[in-house]
Amino acid sequence: MKMMLVGGPGRGKTTLLHQLLQEKLPSHGRSNVATLGVSVKQWSYVSESKTYHISCWDFAGQEEFYSTHQCFLTCRSIYLVVYDISRGESELSYLIPWLLNIQARAPSSPVVIIGTHIDKINKDEYDLRRLQMRTKIQDMCRRPGFPVNLSFSEVDCFNEKMLATLRKKVKDHINSAQ
Amino acid sequence: MKMMLVGGPGRGKTTLLHQLLQEKLPSHGRSNVATLGVSVKQWSYVSESKTYHISCWDFAGQEEFYSTHQCFLTCRSIYLVVYDISRGESELSYLIPWLLNIQARAPSSPVVIIGTHIDKINKDEYDLRRLQMRTKIQDMCRRPGFPVNLSFSEVDCFNEKMLATLRKKVKDHINSAQ
Ligand SMILES: Nc1nc2c(ncn2[C@@H]2O[C@H](COP(=O)(O)OP(=O)(O)O)[C@@H](O)[C@H]2O)c(=O)[nH]1
Ligand SMILES: Nc1nc2c(ncn2[C@@H]2O[C@H](COP(=O)(O)OP(=O)(O)O)[C@@H](O)[C@H]2O)c(=O)[nH]1
Ligand SMILES: [Mg+2]
Ligand SMILES: [Mg+2]
Repeated sequence: MKMMLVGGPGRGKTTLLHQLLQEKLPSHGRSNVATLGVSVKQWSYVSESKTYHISCWDFAGQEEFYSTHQCFLTCRSIYLVVYDISRGESELSYLIPWLLNIQARAPSSPVVIIGTHIDKINKDEYDLRRLQMRTKIQDMCRRPGFPVNLSFSEVDCFNEKMLATLRKKVKDHINSAQ
Repeated sequence: MKMMLVGGPGRGKTTLLHQLLQEKLPSHGRSNVATLGVSVKQWSYVSESKTYHISCWDFAGQEEFYSTHQCFLTCRSIYLVVYDISRGESELSYLIPWLLNIQARAPSSPVVIIGTHIDKINKDEYDLRRLQMRTKIQDMCRRPGFPVNLSFSEVDCFNEKMLATLRKKVKDHINSAQ
């Protein structure tokens, strides 16, 4: 299984991934994270008035080649689409290309739409804002071309309790997608 | 098109890629290199006595997602299989898994087998050693399961003249593979 984190810059993708993978487990179920080494460079050149764009994949080790290559080609995907809920409704239009793209490439994949930065929202408004965003995204996704297997989550990436809930949700998706 | 660099550790893959992409071109054909940001982490955990291995793809930006994702799924590949020719015939057995793997995944891809570190070989022996290695690799690849679209190159990764020749060879392959 592969998990793809997508979304605009500064929305918290890298933070969220780091925090999700920080879980503390009992020793027999120890969570284990390894960074796979793959660096991708884009080499563009003109030759005989044609332009070429070559993406060059440099794998740090054998392990990386096998797992990355194999997983990209054959593993199923779960998509985490990350936005910043504190930025309000302007985030909605940014979600559109991601959602259309996912549906075009991997139509039956589970998609979890995650609003980060909820700690920046006033506690009183929290339930309302959350409901508003979910409703608007759901309405948008009724149109053709959008993913159907959607679920929602809102988190403060630095709140362990919220992370634990999200972790469980992601694992349940992975579990039922196998 | 994507170009995959594979081979054992310390054989010069990263150096070679860096040097290949360093070319100086006339301004109208300026070579252009951008590092795409993608970090892949492997998240392993046990849940209900099943072990899960999730490869988590964190894309730095939109551009990265589109080019990496699309290219991995649809672009044709050229493989650069890198070994250290100065280590002698012991390198041969290390090449086997790479070559079998490439043939299994992408049977009609061009494969360029590149011996780096030729500057460490005595000048008098150079032609002989080069011929010996090429012959042995070619013999090996007559067996079923090995790539058929093979070519060879030997370089000192710090010799611009040799790099220019290799660059031309790679571009010719890309050109005819389109
Ligand atoms: N207050 C708050 N800050 C967050 C949260 N998630 C991420 N950040 C911050 O937002 C900034 C951008 O996060 P980053 O993970 O780099 O975003 P990316 O570009 O999507 O990978 C960083 O300074 C994070 O510390 C959150 O839930 N609450
Ligand atoms: N003398 C010599 N050294 C080389 C050559 N190619 C690479 N190296 C050196 O070999 C070492 C390993 O190279 P690196 O690119 O990191 O190998 P990788 O693990 O395959 O990516 C580095 O110290 C390079 O400078 C070569 O053609 N000649
Ligand atoms: Mg990031
Ligand atoms: Mg390297």
